[in-house]
Amino acid sequence: MDDEQSATASEIAEHTTGTGRLEAFCDGVFAFAITLLVIDLKVPTHAMIGADGGLLAALAGQWPAFLAYVISFATIGIMWVNHHAMFHYIVRADRAMLLLHIAFLLLIAFVPFTTAVLAEYLRSPEARSAALLYGGEFFAISIAYNLIWWHGIRDPHLRHPRLHAAGAAAISGRYRLGPVLYAAATGLAVVSIAASLAIHAFLAVVFAIPDRRRPHAAAGSPSRPPPAA
Amino acid sequence: MDDEQSATASEIAEHTTGTGRLEAFCDGVFAFAITLLVIDLKVPTHAMIGADGGLLAALAGQWPAFLAYVISFATIGIMWVNHHAMFHYIVRADRAMLLLHIAFLLLIAFVPFTTAVLAEYLRSPEARSAALLYGGEFFAISIAYNLIWWHGIRDPHLRHPRLHAAGAAAISGRYRLGPVLYAAATGLAVVSIAASLAIHAFLAVVFAIPDRRRPHAAAGSPSRPPPAA
Amino acid sequence: MDDEQSATASEIAEHTTGTGRLEAFCDGVFAFAITLLVIDLKVPTHAMIGADGGLLAALAGQWPAFLAYVISFATIGIMWVNHHAMFHYIVRADRAMLLLHIAFLLLIAFVPFTTAVLAEYLRSPEARSAALLYGGEFFAISIAYNLIWWHGIRDPHLRHPRLHAAGAAAISGRYRLGPVLYAAATGLAVVSIAASLAIHAFLAVVFAIPDRRRPHAAAGSPSRPPPAA
Amino acid sequence: MDDEQSATASEIAEHTTGTGRLEAFCDGVFAFAITLLVIDLKVPTHAMIGADGGLLAALAGQWPAFLAYVISFATIGIMWVNHHAMFHYIVRADRAMLLLHIAFLLLIAFVPFTTAVLAEYLRSPEARSAALLYGGEFFAISIAYNLIWWHGIRDPHLRHPRLHAAGAAAISGRYRLGPVLYAAATGLAVVSIAASLAIHAFLAVVFAIPDRRRPHAAAGSPSRPPPAA
Repeated sequence: MDDEQSATASEIAEHTTGTGRLEAFCDGVFAFAITLLVIDLKVPTHAMIGADGGLLAALAGQWPAFLAYVISFATIGIMWVNHHAMFHYIVRADRAMLLLHIAFLLLIAFVPFTTAVLAEYLRSPEARSAALLYGGEFFAISIAYNLIWWHGIRDPHLRHPRLHAAGAAAISGRYRLGPVLYAAATGLAVVSIAASLAIHAFLAVVFAIPDRRRPHAAAGSPSRPPPAA
Repeated sequence: MDDEQSATASEIAEHTTGTGRLEAFCDGVFAFAITLLVIDLKVPTHAMIGADGGLLAALAGQWPAFLAYVISFATIGIMWVNHHAMFHYIVRADRAMLLLHIAFLLLIAFVPFTTAVLAEYLRSPEARSAALLYGGEFFAISIAYNLIWWHGIRDPHLRHPRLHAAGAAAISGRYRLGPVLYAAATGLAVVSIAASLAIHAFLAVVFAIPDRRRPHAAAGSPSRPPPAA
Repeated sequence: MDDEQSATASEIAEHTTGTGRLEAFCDGVFAFAITLLVIDLKVPTHAMIGADGGLLAALAGQWPAFLAYVISFATIGIMWVNHHAMFHYIVRADRAMLLLHIAFLLLIAFVPFTTAVLAEYLRSPEARSAALLYGGEFFAISIAYNLIWWHGIRDPHLRHPRLHAAGAAAISGRYRLGPVLYAAATGLAVVSIAASLAIHAFLAVVFAIPDRRRPHAAAGSPSRPPPAA
Repeated sequence: MDDEQSATASEIAEHTTGTGRLEAFCDGVFAFAITLLVIDLKVPTHAMIGADGGLLAALAGQWPAFLAYVISFATIGIMWVNHHAMFHYIVRADRAMLLLHIAFLLLIAFVPFTTAVLAEYLRSPEARSAALLYGGEFFAISIAYNLIWWHGIRDPHLRHPRLHAAGAAAISGRYRLGPVLYAAATGLAVVSIAASLAIHAFLAVVFAIPDRRRPHAAAGSPSRPPPAA
């Protein structure tokens, strides 16, 4: 905190700040949104229990809600992991960065709603609409995620001074896959809702795999390309 | 944390503390209140689906709820951004500052309620009352925000030592616009509810634009006015 | 964080830790519990609107809920302020401290429930029971608060090394008033519910007034009593 | 924060990070999940009040909900305390660690649901199923907890450099008891639901007792076994 305070004057002059409090605020919204998912899991009513096998059968009958819970939880969780990683490369924030985050977090906070809609309608004639809404939400999040990255990386005042151009391009290429894959997974719902959801679950796992390339020059390593700035 | 601890004795003597934990607590309430907005988005019931176009049409019919969600999210989000910025200039907190924050946060936490009322009544004969309540809430928040600023800025123990008088006055003038504009936007609901909400959305964008003036002397810069203290 | 890590070995040896993460966890529960209060404010149903004055009249008719919201928000808020201050004097935590906090936070997280009960029953024949429950909850919190203080202050490994005995005794005397006053305010509900709630609101203000005495020796000041340890 | 930033380059190279932000995110989910438990406590309806003793009797009749609240709160709370302690020994995180935490937090966030099911069905013919679900959840959490520990401890890049092999083994043995005891407590529900819940409450207390052995060599102490790495 004191380090942040002592840096204030020059920060103001440059209209940027450290990312500490932004990351903390994002963590708060991520943590709440991910935990709020549980609110849409409904305790079976006593009326639902009966001839067909009791409480556990009634719970098993709610599998769409549990499936949606797990996919959404994993997707938000991996988003958080990747957002976490992004701030190794983006080390300062300006106003535009904060505003992009408000749009991004608005979408993150919206996930419990699209999840609840999917859970409610997955076994109805409206399942396709629900799956399109559900996937469209993840597509929109991946767009906002890329906007944050692009904004942070093109400005030498925001990106890490040791991030070199080739490294940034490698990460950009990887991130750019997000909207493409989420659009594909979403569109697939027109053909097969099950396949669409399976791809969404698969994407959470795919985006969890770390990139093994090293976009940073190691500290003091002369054999690496210099920072692009 | 250790820095805060080691400063304890002199802090106690002056009845002030660093703002780290206050900011963290505010971030928690901001993040939670903003995420709670999603709770008032209702999944359409199966009874609402039918002749008139299915799930997506039913969702589109809930546009007042989505509109209120977006305006409230943006407004709280920008409030958070500006609150964040305010603590570049206010670097210590006393008891009165903490108490003002409790009133401020009480109002922030109340936004999901006024948002839900607006969403419920925007297409009813009571829309005007709902819009007045909704706008009145933002007006009250902007008053509390100004009280925090005025309290922090007039006390040399709380404000940043390098904040000069002209800089503080420039920010004060900017902040003072808040209550005026929110009162105007709210009052406009008497004439036109749509115009009132449009202004509220517009204000979120306006208050997102950073002030380009530099209220701080740059560290060690002799050509700038000295701190007012 | 790094400071905490590097201190790990000796911490383990003494079975104590810094209070940073404990404070952060408490701030989280405080922030969520205080924000959750808004969930129990119900949007008036359309059926409640009608002959008797419209939406604003229906909202005004919900005054018990708003009153309970404000008193509970203020009380939790002031608890947070005082809890914040307590950790100027208690600088390390052991297992028992963490366990006492779990009991304390269990009671803090319970406030939205007693608040909702009060709001629901304040204008019913069961108002007295609701007020006793409401006040009894604050009484229990004040007991837990004192247990935390007593545990922290009697152990020289936990309390601030510069906290002298007279200063600790002054604070203890002040804190000890809490259970007494909350018990009195609660018991008063037997005679008058309105008076009981007024005292609860008044106590939030009373406990917001800082103690002007300085329980710490100023750093290096020879004229102050030495630490009691 | 700055310490974390300056360590970025070598962190990237090793694909690990400090645990600060991971711990903060976990604290958020823990704090939110634990506070959400209160949402499932229902205010008695006016219809439930009547001949049999009024509001307090109606509340007393909800004892299964309060019992489940207390056991779940204590269990999550102690999990938090122990998770807190675990990161004295695990000082860095890799991708797999983050992913294990997503699974772990998914289960933590699920506790309010199993708690609500238990509260709803504890006095019904389905009580046994509810108790098995409730216990099975804690069993699953203890498995995830052990996976996190095992992953962190076997990798010299993640564990504390001064943690020696015998110390790690002692803690592992202690943690390994968790799944065994939770499985036993859960299975006991087949015979006696009351006994099963009593054991769950008892386990919260048991796991709250700190281990008195010192798995760390004290800093610079030559008489202790060297780090296993």
